[in-house]
Amino acid sequence: MAGGFWRRRWGDRGVDEEVQGVRCYPSVSELPEAPDVVGIVVPYHAVLDTLKESHAKGAKSAIVISAGFAERGVDDRRELQVELGRFAQESGMRVSGPNCLGLANLKDDIWASAASRGATGLSGPIGLVCQSGASAFGPFLTRAVDEGIGFTYIVSTGNEADLDFCDFARYLIDDDDTRVIAGFIEGFKDGRKFVEVARLAAERGKPIVLIKIGRSELGSRAAGSHTAALTGADDRYDAVFAQYGVIRVQDYDDLLQVSNLLARCPRPPQRGVAVVSHSGGISSLTADMFGQAGLDLPPLSDRARDGINGILKGFGWAANPSDVTGYANSDDFPAIMSFMADDEGVGTLVVASAGADPQATQVIAQRDGSDKPVAFLWTGTRGAESGLPMLRREGIPVFYVPDKLAAGVRYLNDYHEWREERLRRGFASAGDLTGAQGDAANALGNGGALSEYESKGLIAAFGVPTTREELAGDAEGAVAAAERVGYPVAMKVDSADILHKTEAGAIRLGLDSADAVRAAFDEVTANARAYDASARIDGVVVQEMVSGGVETIVGVSYDAQLGPFLLFGTGGVMVEVYEDVALRLCPITRGDALEMIDEVKGARLLRGFRGAPAADVDALADTLVRVSEMAVQLEGLLGELDINPLMVLPQGRGVKAVDALALGAR
Amino acid sequence: MAGGFWRRRWGDRGVDEEVQGVRCYPSVSELPEAPDVVGIVVPYHAVLDTLKESHAKGAKSAIVISAGFAERGVDDRRELQVELGRFAQESGMRVSGPNCLGLANLKDDIWASAASRGATGLSGPIGLVCQSGASAFGPFLTRAVDEGIGFTYIVSTGNEADLDFCDFARYLIDDDDTRVIAGFIEGFKDGRKFVEVARLAAERGKPIVLIKIGRSELGSRAAGSHTAALTGADDRYDAVFAQYGVIRVQDYDDLLQVSNLLARCPRPPQRGVAVVSHSGGISSLTADMFGQAGLDLPPLSDRARDGINGILKGFGWAANPSDVTGYANSDDFPAIMSFMADDEGVGTLVVASAGADPQATQVIAQRDGSDKPVAFLWTGTRGAESGLPMLRREGIPVFYVPDKLAAGVRYLNDYHEWREERLRRGFASAGDLTGAQGDAANALGNGGALSEYESKGLIAAFGVPTTREELAGDAEGAVAAAERVGYPVAMKVDSADILHKTEAGAIRLGLDSADAVRAAFDEVTANARAYDASARIDGVVVQEMVSGGVETIVGVSYDAQLGPFLLFGTGGVMVEVYEDVALRLCPITRGDALEMIDEVKGARLLRGFRGAPAADVDALADTLVRVSEMAVQLEGLLGELDINPLMVLPQGRGVKAVDALALGAR
Repeated sequence: MAGGFWRRRWGDRGVDEEVQGVRCYPSVSELPEAPDVVGIVVPYHAVLDTLKESHAKGAKSAIVISAGFAERGVDDRRELQVELGRFAQESGMRVSGPNCLGLANLKDDIWASAASRGATGLSGPIGLVCQSGASAFGPFLTRAVDEGIGFTYIVSTGNEADLDFCDFARYLIDDDDTRVIAGFIEGFKDGRKFVEVARLAAERGKPIVLIKIGRSELGSRAAGSHTAALTGADDRYDAVFAQYGVIRVQDYDDLLQVSNLLARCPRPPQRGVAVVSHSGGISSLTADMFGQAGLDLPPLSDRARDGINGILKGFGWAANPSDVTGYANSDDFPAIMSFMADDEGVGTLVVASAGADPQATQVIAQRDGSDKPVAFLWTGTRGAESGLPMLRREGIPVFYVPDKLAAGVRYLNDYHEWREERLRRGFASAGDLTGAQGDAANALGNGGALSEYESKGLIAAFGVPTTREELAGDAEGAVAAAERVGYPVAMKVDSADILHKTEAGAIRLGLDSADAVRAAFDEVTANARAYDASARIDGVVVQEMVSGGVETIVGVSYDAQLGPFLLFGTGGVMVEVYEDVALRLCPITRGDALEMIDEVKGARLLRGFRGAPAADVDALADTLVRVSEMAVQLEGLLGELDINPLMVLPQGRGVKAVDALALGAR
Repeated sequence: MAGGFWRRRWGDRGVDEEVQGVRCYPSVSELPEAPDVVGIVVPYHAVLDTLKESHAKGAKSAIVISAGFAERGVDDRRELQVELGRFAQESGMRVSGPNCLGLANLKDDIWASAASRGATGLSGPIGLVCQSGASAFGPFLTRAVDEGIGFTYIVSTGNEADLDFCDFARYLIDDDDTRVIAGFIEGFKDGRKFVEVARLAAERGKPIVLIKIGRSELGSRAAGSHTAALTGADDRYDAVFAQYGVIRVQDYDDLLQVSNLLARCPRPPQRGVAVVSHSGGISSLTADMFGQAGLDLPPLSDRARDGINGILKGFGWAANPSDVTGYANSDDFPAIMSFMADDEGVGTLVVASAGADPQATQVIAQRDGSDKPVAFLWTGTRGAESGLPMLRREGIPVFYVPDKLAAGVRYLNDYHEWREERLRRGFASAGDLTGAQGDAANALGNGGALSEYESKGLIAAFGVPTTREELAGDAEGAVAAAERVGYPVAMKVDSADILHKTEAGAIRLGLDSADAVRAAFDEVTANARAYDASARIDGVVVQEMVSGGVETIVGVSYDAQLGPFLLFGTGGVMVEVYEDVALRLCPITRGDALEMIDEVKGARLLRGFRGAPAADVDALADTLVRVSEMAVQLEGLLGELDINPLMVLPQGRGVKAVDALALGAR
């Protein structure tokens, strides 16, 4: 396919046979052969016909640049876009767009794009997929050119009537030249498809680095009005990203620099970082930023310190970070770098400087002669004519400010550690429902809420330990139940219609005698009736009192795009005041469960806080796994689940669901 | 003073009379007249003699470039540096350095610096002071040249044997051409001096923007080894920065871009931001970053929306953010910008684009014709030859990634709002001690801990309400006290030697009869003696029980560099698990106190959480002010103070210190 790719339709007007030296035709139908791909730049109302005409001519794919579809925010345009998608699906012709700027294959220098062609020779290891064409061929392309960062492909997907981000990402997973997939996403068309792609990318070891809009409500509003993509609740995406090793960054430079670092660097053999600079102030700031990013600069070994001191001869400071003054631009610099990089605790060497080509040559040689990655903090002008261009050309990852460098190196370490752990641990899967579980779930089929007693029956069928309890129909039955359960007991009116039992006065706690139970029965049923005369009351639950545990909350919710999520937090006031919860897509593995527990700050209470006994974290982790599997198995039936509180008892004594509320999906 | 400023000492060797066309002399003594300033670049051991020689010649100031002093981390070099400082003080000759790179006066193009001279014509509204010379004349200078950001002065202060960051900042406050003071600090030589300078800068409306090392322990370690400056505890500096309107940023580009924005922009008339771009994806991401920064994009008025829609004719999206497609590069762009900027809720206009000079001209005209600031997000190449250079030249603040822009605009709004509020509220001051207060403080003079009873006596003298309580020497005295205090009571052994009363079994709570009090007296005194036979026991405190309040903690500590700090947090487990506390330098105003309360998340409990009554926040604020004043008045006597818990009772009922512990300063 030659240049002059994009053609407007000519209609019946008389036209030249050539435009800029390329032979032209008045319509697709009149082409001498079937085109590989058709670029469509006609008014929105003519797009569908042009697609049909192209299909009739034998074209297998099209790129619709034309705008004026769902992004206009009106119904008929949305409908028109749905029609494009339907036509693609039915005809088998794959369509990119509408409202995109096309794509560029940098490997073969084919620009099927409505944007100006960027610099040539920009090929490199990053595959870029953006919904926004003006971003793909705007800041991303121009900054990549600025920084000498290269792509395999640049793809803009626009409104995604047919092909979406995930389709292209899936393609890039199979492309051996693409080492990192970089994306800018306003909203995923299909969340589950993304999860599948992310999982495959993780298995193949191909990092995905993303900017995703929706960190704030403002962004979602703007995205909604733009590509009309549904921006899912952002916290859930963050959970999925963490779970599937997707690296989320914030801005143009981040996306390019972090992607480049990941594409260019091997896995650091350990987490420690060594920093060397010509300046003490620069190395101090860099060290500070590494500390803030949670990466350690291990102290130099005696060997390295003595070796470097032998070179410095009384100037600078041989340490980690090192301030090696002018020796950063001397024949001794390779020896200094070796001393630092070869130290045992060091996984990554960071050079913070701005030397000319001789320094760059030394740094490249250090990288080539070692299995430890080298990253560069360039402290000079971005327009430097010596040093910097060579570093870029030779694929040394370059950053320009210390905090971005530190964050990048953190991502590099985290990604590889995460992946190793994930491959070891595997992705979780949920088995089939047992008969008993199916029976317990039947109650959900009616939709609406289950009573506490029913809710607990449901979770018990999935292996979640619950309080010893019985449902009593009258006062004497309650007394008999209390004898079996064991004093003291709690009593709670059981009704799917009364969800706020405390407010209704339908709960009594700590009852320690038959008389107290009898009196409480009458009292709570009377209160419940007074609270809601029409409520269906199933009886009164007589329940053991649980003490000496740590309150936690475990919940399940379903995201329309992504499916079931598990929530864990420490209970009581902490969840509400601090929103201190962990979230994961279901199902999870036991390792995931332990990670969730670690993530919640309040879970320090589980570890034996202020002299209290340590709680049964093992049993808690098992329960989180079970609930996550249940959430998968009951998708479509279960709408929401709260186990609140789930008491975590002292080590060896397990957990107990003290209250639970399940809601049907419909 | 001509070029060829820096001279090495020649000793007695025969030398040329000229170097690079500048007349030279073998020593300072042989100069034909007294120099204004002497630049000293001799081996470290010859610096002091050279200073003396220069002083004898009549020089009033010197810049010591030579290194090899405290930064070497050994005692004799530290001592040598102290000697330099002492000589400066005694002689009256002011000395900058050692271990610096000098300074540059960009206004008059005088470079008294050992660094290469940067580009000329770099003068502008920012005064830059860095301890690190390689940073000042490295990344800061080169990036400023890249971005066309100009300075009044560039100062490197090095090890600060005499003149320090604060001296130069103080000078810049008086310099009318300096509109913003930018600094890079590894550690303040004198914290209190900095507070004084920050206060004066706030009063004069001259923002201070800082990078300060020490966010992480790693950074402090590096800084410690570098300039040998003492890095104070970082949280305390953050508190001081917030209190004195100092803007803390993280990296080179931040420091320059944020300083430039503040120097170039008037105060936005309100907080709302309008964003306009040629691209939907770019405007969405920008909006998202504003949301994350906590700034709102108010919806467009009907007038603006209709006006812009009239221009767009069916393309793009007239909203906030606006995607105006190619109209961003058309004659209609000025009208679009006006519609957005003139909207009532809008205080700042943000243009996100990459147009050529015609667009830049329009943006400059918009800025010049409005009292609302305009900031630019440049989305193209940093090396653009049209558009960007004009924006830079004409002083439009330019950012290159959306999150940095949003953070910058947030600082701009916050600074001016903070300053208005601060000028209204004033800085707090503490009065003199009353006689009674002085008496109460006498107990501190012995050093060590006060007992609970003594500690409460101390805070009561400063107006902090405490529990009703009496000290009883025997069981019958305790019963009599309980009658007066009112049942139920708590009983606590009173001893400055037993600080962990619960652990010692030296506390009983909720005693509601004479018998219980009698028994408790014997029990707690026996437990206390068993716990620590040598403890001096002053008696047993019989104390009212306080219920129905919210537990908080109020504390005082002293920073060696900065002085007294007040800490406030919600009590119990929350402080320990979430480190949810607010910190301020003392004294504070009532407004500061309310701000501290707002800052603590757990303080939601004070506002009537989950149906509980709202607590007496007014009384709490008063108490915080009193404790902060007490901390100032008792400096040198008091070492630490914990009031834990301070119960905040329901509205109108005040606060009550239930326990307190004061430690003497020595």
